[in-house]
Amino acid sequence: MEVMYFVAAGSTLALIFAFCMFLRVKKQPEGTAEMIHISEAVRKGANAYLKRQYSGVAIFFAVVFVILFGMAIGGYLSFFTPFAFLTGGFFSGLSGFIGMRTATMANSRTAQGASLSLNKGLKVAFSAGSVMGFTVVGLGLLDLSIWFFILNAVFPGDISSITTNMLTFGMGASSMALFARVGGGIFTKAADVGADLVGKVEAGIPEDDPRNPAVIADNVGDNVGDVAGMGADLYESYVGSIVSTGALAVAAGYGMAGVSVPMMIAALGVLASIIGTFFVKTKEGASQKNLLKALRTGTYISAAIIIVASYFVIRILLPDHMGLYGAIISGLVAGVLIGAVTEYFTSDTYKPTQKLADSSETGAATVIISGLSLGMLSTVAPVLIVATSILASYYCAGGAGDFNLGLYGIGLSAVGMLSTLGITLATDAYGPIADNAGGIAEMTHMDANVRERTDALDSLGNTTAATGKGFAIGSAALTALALVASYIDKVKGIEGGFNFDLSITNPIVLVGLLIGGMLPFLFAALTMDAVGIAAQAIVIEVRRQFKSIVGIMEGTTEPDYAACVDMCTRSAQKLMVAPTLVAVIVPIVVGLLIGPAGVVGLLTGNLITGFVLAIMMANAGGAWDNAKKYVEGGAHGGKGSAQHKATVVGDTVGDPFKDTSGPSINILIKLTSMVSIVFAGLIVAFHLL
Amino acid sequence: MEVMYFVAAGSTLALIFAFCMFLRVKKQPEGTAEMIHISEAVRKGANAYLKRQYSGVAIFFAVVFVILFGMAIGGYLSFFTPFAFLTGGFFSGLSGFIGMRTATMANSRTAQGASLSLNKGLKVAFSAGSVMGFTVVGLGLLDLSIWFFILNAVFPGDISSITTNMLTFGMGASSMALFARVGGGIFTKAADVGADLVGKVEAGIPEDDPRNPAVIADNVGDNVGDVAGMGADLYESYVGSIVSTGALAVAAGYGMAGVSVPMMIAALGVLASIIGTFFVKTKEGASQKNLLKALRTGTYISAAIIIVASYFVIRILLPDHMGLYGAIISGLVAGVLIGAVTEYFTSDTYKPTQKLADSSETGAATVIISGLSLGMLSTVAPVLIVATSILASYYCAGGAGDFNLGLYGIGLSAVGMLSTLGITLATDAYGPIADNAGGIAEMTHMDANVRERTDALDSLGNTTAATGKGFAIGSAALTALALVASYIDKVKGIEGGFNFDLSITNPIVLVGLLIGGMLPFLFAALTMDAVGIAAQAIVIEVRRQFKSIVGIMEGTTEPDYAACVDMCTRSAQKLMVAPTLVAVIVPIVVGLLIGPAGVVGLLTGNLITGFVLAIMMANAGGAWDNAKKYVEGGAHGGKGSAQHKATVVGDTVGDPFKDTSGPSINILIKLTSMVSIVFAGLIVAFHLL
Repeated sequence: MEVMYFVAAGSTLALIFAFCMFLRVKKQPEGTAEMIHISEAVRKGANAYLKRQYSGVAIFFAVVFVILFGMAIGGYLSFFTPFAFLTGGFFSGLSGFIGMRTATMANSRTAQGASLSLNKGLKVAFSAGSVMGFTVVGLGLLDLSIWFFILNAVFPGDISSITTNMLTFGMGASSMALFARVGGGIFTKAADVGADLVGKVEAGIPEDDPRNPAVIADNVGDNVGDVAGMGADLYESYVGSIVSTGALAVAAGYGMAGVSVPMMIAALGVLASIIGTFFVKTKEGASQKNLLKALRTGTYISAAIIIVASYFVIRILLPDHMGLYGAIISGLVAGVLIGAVTEYFTSDTYKPTQKLADSSETGAATVIISGLSLGMLSTVAPVLIVATSILASYYCAGGAGDFNLGLYGIGLSAVGMLSTLGITLATDAYGPIADNAGGIAEMTHMDANVRERTDALDSLGNTTAATGKGFAIGSAALTALALVASYIDKVKGIEGGFNFDLSITNPIVLVGLLIGGMLPFLFAALTMDAVGIAAQAIVIEVRRQFKSIVGIMEGTTEPDYAACVDMCTRSAQKLMVAPTLVAVIVPIVVGLLIGPAGVVGLLTGNLITGFVLAIMMANAGGAWDNAKKYVEGGAHGGKGSAQHKATVVGDTVGDPFKDTSGPSINILIKLTSMVSIVFAGLIVAFHLL
Repeated sequence: MEVMYFVAAGSTLALIFAFCMFLRVKKQPEGTAEMIHISEAVRKGANAYLKRQYSGVAIFFAVVFVILFGMAIGGYLSFFTPFAFLTGGFFSGLSGFIGMRTATMANSRTAQGASLSLNKGLKVAFSAGSVMGFTVVGLGLLDLSIWFFILNAVFPGDISSITTNMLTFGMGASSMALFARVGGGIFTKAADVGADLVGKVEAGIPEDDPRNPAVIADNVGDNVGDVAGMGADLYESYVGSIVSTGALAVAAGYGMAGVSVPMMIAALGVLASIIGTFFVKTKEGASQKNLLKALRTGTYISAAIIIVASYFVIRILLPDHMGLYGAIISGLVAGVLIGAVTEYFTSDTYKPTQKLADSSETGAATVIISGLSLGMLSTVAPVLIVATSILASYYCAGGAGDFNLGLYGIGLSAVGMLSTLGITLATDAYGPIADNAGGIAEMTHMDANVRERTDALDSLGNTTAATGKGFAIGSAALTALALVASYIDKVKGIEGGFNFDLSITNPIVLVGLLIGGMLPFLFAALTMDAVGIAAQAIVIEVRRQFKSIVGIMEGTTEPDYAACVDMCTRSAQKLMVAPTLVAVIVPIVVGLLIGPAGVVGLLTGNLITGFVLAIMMANAGGAWDNAKKYVEGGAHGGKGSAQHKATVVGDTVGDPFKDTSGPSINILIKLTSMVSIVFAGLIVAFHLL
């Protein structure tokens, strides 16, 4: 029990640190009037987005709350679940909200900082990223603590009841995360593509020109997609991995000590991450490699601290099971390796992306083929890394002797991977902030000197965003696996005893696998289509403004930025419904039609294809983006050449890949598991009829 | 036993019918001297390809033969297997060889026939396609009969030994099929892309211009990819489904009667297909829809005959198990439905492809995004159809009571789907022949009237090719499933008794699933890359000829067609090695590292992702091709417009999708299963050490 005070302390520490960082960013000067003006517009736009997004999502949450409450009345669910569903959604949304507010506040300040020195720019952007990272971690632990204390008061000392109830909490967070990722993803890419199509192609004004009515929406998009979406996504993985490992600890017979291990590691992770942030700094005149090194040093130091600290956690809590230590390390190492592989495939300092740029010599079609092929090839190493981590953690934890011990090990490896989330997320959220700062520097025609610095920061942001995505996918796979295990455990534990054949040769499992394997493809198709439809709406709105608002092109009248933002929001809002419903409804329908064994197949198939497809899309998209930047840097004819145009096609295809469909799949694979867990009671009852 | 005489008779009938059709095609006039000249060049090129292809493949077969022979000496394999490996490869190769020879003979004759009447053109092309269809079926049944008689002489009446031995026969056919598909696919797309890049873009000569040194290679490619590759692929599915169902019959306890059912259905399928071909005819002035109807009528009549005949087969052989009849029907119906869905998604008479053409209004990037999204969406229905067919055949066959009965049902559904292969393959092989005829008509500047007719035939060919691919994928999934079941059965039956946990929660199975799920992505990446590399080699060769051979552009000297063909062959030869080795080596390595449970996971994961990815690639590719044709038909600015150029990018990306990577994945999922079965003894022995 005492461990929960540590968790509460860790939560408090994280939130205080996030607040300090927030104040530190706020203190920075905002720059010139022009900069403030643009930053203001982005902030206003982001608020408009949030207002509509949350009011739409509120309806979904209300409906689901009523359904869950009805299920609780029917006895298929604990009465805590509907409320936990709300708090999960609320905290996940709050994480995104705070992160986004900070990011939109930090963009002009980062540009201003970069005008003084590179180190200053880095500091501001990274501090803002830290607000996001530590808010996610702090709120996650807060949610866990609150519910633990409530449940412990209701079921004093009954750890099994506590963990079973807590397991269902993730569904709210997952739902909110999916809305944030899909909605944000549609928003950002619709604005991006729409702004380019009318502005650059039709009106002939340069990129990021303030006369383009969609330019602010484009900048807002960076924040709502990459910052808020990523935050909600990882909030969900973080909480999900801890609660599912807790449930698996009980199944493994470790009781409270076993539940305490993931909690303790998470709490210590806060401390380790805070220490790590102090090592993120660079000297003036640092190269891009030095900058990356600065960010990496912080992450590696945090990881090293966890490696040492978790040894003692196991030593103290479960001294007879030191193998669990290996499980934690395997997850931590896997996370770092996946990041490295992602960087190799998407950074233009390595061969794959350079070769992709070479393919622009023979036109757009070869750029597309090479990019898809690169993305597919890049799935090999992450799959092998995760596979190794699964086996290592399973057998280290004693899976050879007892199946349940091994599953607990897999859960711990997910917790290990996510333990340093505070700092890894800071590094990741730093990317879009630097990106926005670069945009502001460009739009306000700042000194070449400043632009050079923001470019260095921005380019680095692409790499950290890519590694962040690799990390998000890896942790999603392990978390989803722990959730599937928890689902099986939950079904088996339902009163009346429900036995099911989970053999891969059971045709029900097989059919579930097939449908699950297809789900990410359906989901990706829906989200990619949504981007196309939303972009068309923006094209029409921008054309309307150019026609009806006099003086835009002369720069005498300001375009109606908010209308474009509103239009993006409305489209995103409408179009995110179908993919989300797919994620929620399919596992329920499959469960009703072919039962829990089919659901296990569905979740596993979904996990397998989803993992591979998500990596493929994220890496292909990242590589296309950087291949374009590589050509813009002067290779293959440079900006404006035919080769450059070919890479622009690649980049445009990559946009929904890497910022909409790919990262949403991470959440899809967790949300389907969460939904299955929450509806398990109902579905088993239906099949026992 | 008597049933084998039926099978031998069916084989003879099919081969005689194929020979008659061959003579009928040969009898047709070849057309003008110009047509004969071009046809001659294509034939010469195809011969050059075959010569090198077979000499390269011979090395692979020799090496594997020695390995298998060594394993037989070591006692891990029957001594029949190495020899059966050779005959399987030989007959599969022979099927492709005969089909291709006929196709290259029929192209000018089809064009000549079309100059007389549409019906005449259709007849010639369809007769040539029939040669292919019935050769595949006839040789398949011949191979089965020969081995059955040999094995029955060695193990008189011991049906279990016979089927276990026959099960390993498919590996030779699978290997040859993979070489044919991958090699042919690389060849055809390298020639296509290479010819376009230098001819159209650099030299400014029109498509299909005889001055282009790669134009013959391009035409050869249609034959080696679509005809020979498809034939070898389905030869393999056909034989594989029959032998694996035979093995499952023994496991289900049905003995010789159970083994006879698939054999009888296959033999009757020959008769049904022959009857069906007589209904393929059309009136002069028929629209494209009428043409399609003509082809469909033949297929549907054959299917109807099988529906009636198989009732009596079950009634006579296994009268107490009439549920098996349902299993057969479920496969047959699933095949027809998948064909219909494929047509819906890839034909420009339906919305999806028309919408894809619409997306050309906003450029190449949106064409790519929409096409990928269309391909992904098109996987939903086939997955649900196959899933339904699996469940229906499993439970109809009595799977609820006994697991092994159900598996036998799944095997029978694959046999049912493939029973009318003679005519479905004829319909399919007709496509590239009509395509070639259209090319010849265009190259020899025949009457507008003739071109209209060949265009109608060609356009129809696109649809039949697409439905043929859907059918190939569907049957591959069911066959692979039957093979996986046979593998499990084989491992369990190995002396000494090898028990393995096939629960989906076993981390070994899970890791196998993950690696298997990634395999098709790796495979697709390797094959797409291969096309790119081979195309580059062609570009260089064509440039060399334009430079060094005087008089090409003036039309006074003929370019060195054979050199381009040779170049394509050599590249295809070299580049097909890596993907093929992946398919052969990965299941062995996984087996050695994590054992048979991991292999079952690998095969299942491979099947799931492979099925979805193959459909996605085939349908996206088909839709891109037809969207381009739709624009060329006058929509969205027509030929030469910016929209047309955007659809050309889509078509080029689609080329390796639909003709190289996609269809090769069908074979990948079967070959990995076959390899696993053949090496099962060795791997189990290794793990029992």
